Amino acid sequence: MPFRISRLGYVEVKVLDLDDALDFYTNVLGLHLVERVGNKAYLKTWDEQLAYSVILTESDSAGLVRAGFRTVDPEDVDYFEKKLKQYEVPYEVIPEDYKRGKAIRFTIPSGHTFEIYYDIEIPGNFLPKESPDPWPRNLKYDAINPPKIDHMLITAPDPTKTIKFCEEVLEFRATEYIVNGEGQPVAAWLYQARQQPHDLAIIPGREKGLHHFAFHISSAQDIYHAADIMVMNDVKIDWGPGRHGITRGAGIYFFDPFGNRIETFGGYTAYLFDPGAKPIIWTEETMGRGVFYYERKLVETFLTVYT
Amino acid sequence: MPFRISRLGYVEVKVLDLDDALDFYTNVLGLHLVERVGNKAYLKTWDEQLAYSVILTESDSAGLVRAGFRTVDPEDVDYFEKKLKQYEVPYEVIPEDYKRGKAIRFTIPSGHTFEIYYDIEIPGNFLPKESPDPWPRNLKYDAINPPKIDHMLITAPDPTKTIKFCEEVLEFRATEYIVNGEGQPVAAWLYQARQQPHDLAIIPGREKGLHHFAFHISSAQDIYHAADIMVMNDVKIDWGPGRHGITRGAGIYFFDPFGNRIETFGGYTAYLFDPGAKPIIWTEETMGRGVFYYERKLVETFLTVYT
Amino acid sequence: MPFRISRLGYVEVKVLDLDDALDFYTNVLGLHLVERVGNKAYLKTWDEQLAYSVILTESDSAGLVRAGFRTVDPEDVDYFEKKLKQYEVPYEVIPEDYKRGKAIRFTIPSGHTFEIYYDIEIPGNFLPKESPDPWPRNLKYDAINPPKIDHMLITAPDPTKTIKFCEEVLEFRATEYIVNGEGQPVAAWLYQARQQPHDLAIIPGREKGLHHFAFHISSAQDIYHAADIMVMNDVKIDWGPGRHGITRGAGIYFFDPFGNRIETFGGYTAYLFDPGAKPIIWTEETMGRGVFYYERKLVETFLTVYT
Amino acid sequence: MPFRISRLGYVEVKVLDLDDALDFYTNVLGLHLVERVGNKAYLKTWDEQLAYSVILTESDSAGLVRAGFRTVDPEDVDYFEKKLKQYEVPYEVIPEDYKRGKAIRFTIPSGHTFEIYYDIEIPGNFLPKESPDPWPRNLKYDAINPPKIDHMLITAPDPTKTIKFCEEVLEFRATEYIVNGEGQPVAAWLYQARQQPHDLAIIPGREKGLHHFAFHISSAQDIYHAADIMVMNDVKIDWGPGRHGITRGAGIYFFDPFGNRIETFGGYTAYLFDPGAKPIIWTEETMGRGVFYYERKLVETFLTVYT
Repeated sequence: MPFRISRLGYVEVKVLDLDDALDFYTNVLGLHLVERVGNKAYLKTWDEQLAYSVILTESDSAGLVRAGFRTVDPEDVDYFEKKLKQYEVPYEVIPEDYKRGKAIRFTIPSGHTFEIYYDIEIPGNFLPKESPDPWPRNLKYDAINPPKIDHMLITAPDPTKTIKFCEEVLEFRATEYIVNGEGQPVAAWLYQARQQPHDLAIIPGREKGLHHFAFHISSAQDIYHAADIMVMNDVKIDWGPGRHGITRGAGIYFFDPFGNRIETFGGYTAYLFDPGAKPIIWTEETMGRGVFYYERKLVETFLTVYT
Repeated sequence: MPFRISRLGYVEVKVLDLDDALDFYTNVLGLHLVERVGNKAYLKTWDEQLAYSVILTESDSAGLVRAGFRTVDPEDVDYFEKKLKQYEVPYEVIPEDYKRGKAIRFTIPSGHTFEIYYDIEIPGNFLPKESPDPWPRNLKYDAINPPKIDHMLITAPDPTKTIKFCEEVLEFRATEYIVNGEGQPVAAWLYQARQQPHDLAIIPGREKGLHHFAFHISSAQDIYHAADIMVMNDVKIDWGPGRHGITRGAGIYFFDPFGNRIETFGGYTAYLFDPGAKPIIWTEETMGRGVFYYERKLVETFLTVYT
Repeated sequence: MPFRISRLGYVEVKVLDLDDALDFYTNVLGLHLVERVGNKAYLKTWDEQLAYSVILTESDSAGLVRAGFRTVDPEDVDYFEKKLKQYEVPYEVIPEDYKRGKAIRFTIPSGHTFEIYYDIEIPGNFLPKESPDPWPRNLKYDAINPPKIDHMLITAPDPTKTIKFCEEVLEFRATEYIVNGEGQPVAAWLYQARQQPHDLAIIPGREKGLHHFAFHISSAQDIYHAADIMVMNDVKIDWGPGRHGITRGAGIYFFDPFGNRIETFGGYTAYLFDPGAKPIIWTEETMGRGVFYYERKLVETFLTVYT
Repeated sequence: MPFRISRLGYVEVKVLDLDDALDFYTNVLGLHLVERVGNKAYLKTWDEQLAYSVILTESDSAGLVRAGFRTVDPEDVDYFEKKLKQYEVPYEVIPEDYKRGKAIRFTIPSGHTFEIYYDIEIPGNFLPKESPDPWPRNLKYDAINPPKIDHMLITAPDPTKTIKFCEEVLEFRATEYIVNGEGQPVAAWLYQARQQPHDLAIIPGREKGLHHFAFHISSAQDIYHAADIMVMNDVKIDWGPGRHGITRGAGIYFFDPFGNRIETFGGYTAYLFDPGAKPIIWTEETMGRGVFYYERKLVETFLTVYT
């Protein structure tokens, strides 16, 4: 099967106060507000070509509302619609949403709401479409300014089943697994067309759990700069600057003001994976070093704190 | 149409002396010799999962023999076989080659030999498949050591036609074009599944011309380190350390001992492109800055020196 | 003799239009205007603790007016006053200048006006003096923002004589020399207390010539960022991003709007030199690689274009 | 008073097993063995010009034996001899030591043995003295390879007294203080000629305590690379990759196999300090952020674990 999903397109995340959230997401993280509509705000990074990649929704708790994966072409949405039917997965067709056309919406075994869509407005990034400079000049010096959303890590009460669903029905492929004593995957890092370490990762935990969503950061220096900004803004750092053994990515885990964990994920040593290559295996003995390479063990909050 | 081509898989390049070539490609560039077979040598970068990505062939001139693009899945080879038939493009089926299975081989309008294949041995990169460290410990400090092959730039007497062929028949998509006064693309940067700035680029020039092939380098510091190594080894630098406006990539153009141009292409500010987004346009007036962002004009050798 | 000079404290440079100059020096280079007084403007970098480090003076030609070297302690000014007397070098005592106390002013053999001073207002850098963050938050993203002035390269009709003067009278010490066939230094890189590659360098050329003055930049990534900013502002780049063999420094030569050459000098691989260590020697054969390590020869403008 | 001390020249550190120590210091840290003499080994970094900068001595406990500060000129040793006399500080004259001439040896109030010397063999760094490349080609890829020793942090039962001694008798100057409620310095970062954030720092603790000694690392990427190497060699990381608020330095604390703490100190955002500028002040409330900028509090081991 060819690649029919391009990448993680958007996440909708709950926040307790939309004003405070916008202050954080725009002034500290450096996202740009596309529009505020009722209790929702649509945002995007400076290099995002699509209409938006983050939706914040005011609510009485934090956590994930839904995640959208964008297909490579319009007909790929129909392809997955058929596939869901074939696997008898209930789904809704959502004819349109903010600046977006048709999506199919369904629940994966871990309880998370996923959407698959192609049609969304493409206003382009913050550079001209003709003869652009390499970056926009009006960025804030003291904001993190990631160029693009990168991936999402979710928790599942039955991760083996959720992983299998994502692989079989949604055609994700694995770059890395943590396997249990029986050799079964209990955590997985899953990729689509970009062949990067992950678009989606799944670890054990409660249903509907959002462990973190991540933005790309390109260099070790940028990671340090981001960490500086977090301190200057009293942002709670959960872990890092550090490195993962799994994905090789360097980065920082931190929390938005409501406890949603975000990562700046530095791909500077991350890899491209080849279809057909065997996934990398980590065991319960080595997974500590896999997740937190420098600490060589799980940081306490990793399995216990998420939204 | 979904993505059926994963990436540029290998290039076969002619060298005048295989011993000298191996000295350069292994000791300076830091590729690893897989095997020398007759007048050919098969090499790969340390993070290459597939059997090889560079083939050197002793010959009486420099230049490109062929380029191989690997598909996402086995059946994608059949798909392109049908497509070539449909477009009445002559092709050969090559049942097998060194550590590789079936490929279809054909000539594109610019005269270059392309192969499309899926089946190749996948011995993995230079790290263990279980609980690996992020990089192999035995790399040479004074070699460039790029992790992977990245892209190829070729010349075409009728670039508009060659671009159209690559887009229609091979299903490349464009990130950027240089257009002439009539708005026709005379140069193109074309991507496949990875959605990176390019897997293949085409500029005007003579048929079968190899402008350069490129390896990924991840940071500005690594680019400087690579340039240092070039001087220490009397490698001729053609351009750089510099930056392209087109692709935003930072890098260096340099020559192997036989005049084949190679690039270390630093993706640290390069982008990911979204299917459906309009290609970036450069004109004949702005293309100088597009190709060489800091010089803001074409370096003399750019259009005149290649193999 | 101990170290009595701390570093290059300020340069006064002529510009043809002070308004245009301030636009360039503040918006592109990212210096901060301390005050404009008549036809002069006093500026400083964000991490400068002293009152100012650059003085721009509106004039009908470009070039250097004077350079000030700050001593380690007040009595060191008297020490050099005695030394000048002893060597029968004419000097003036300048009792005060803008935000500065006493200086001694004299002409070195190459015709340049030097000042030695200690007493200057020390308002501190742009961070609080108590519990500061590592950098100020209100910097412009699209300015170069060097933290501090670094060194100055001047030309001398009789460089051997000027070098000897600076060593004997001003107690500079050499890190590196270019020597002629007779082994005489015809160019020198000279340091003071910081023991960095240079505070002052001297090459052959016309009297009073200012080859360039330089600001520190800390990483290869920052050098690339600086080069990007130069293109975005139509700043003429003379050379770079590149590296010097001499000093090992990485950097860029560029021109202010009036032809004064400036360098962003990236010390990331520069060294600290030990008193008593023999200077590094370059010859007329190797000096091309010494000055421009990647080009391995003098760029044409190096010996011909300066103010 | 001018600068009469150039920098921290060497530290002598106790190790429990010299073979194991040499394996760590040469293969992991990347120092070079100058010579092993009896129960001592003399080592240096690749860019060290002097004969050695680290002495390892086999002993039955870890910790500091002595630290040597090198003067700017020979007569500065006599100067400090007189000064010690004047302050009635007992001292020994050590006429010679390994590859070194005369030193004066004395005990500072915190019980540490200091030496002041000028005369030491200067074989130069690992590059030729004529027309050198910027770095030596034969470094190990998987060693940390710092270019030079940087500073030392020691503990004192009466830090205020020890700080005062270092300032008055040894003519160190302060860049930063932590002050107690009465405004008295209880910790200090002290510099000499280089005007860098510190050559010596003093914090409260037991007498003769060695908190850490540090080597310079130039970029955020190099810090990450160093941390990778520590994991690959099962080196215990105490803290980092992180950043200090005090000194602004980025770095890693880690332990040699015997518990001596070492730092790779990344000066990429560190500053140069101007004589006469007021030291930066931190209070007992802000010192947590001062020492560990990202954690914003003292890591538990900081005050309790040292040799």
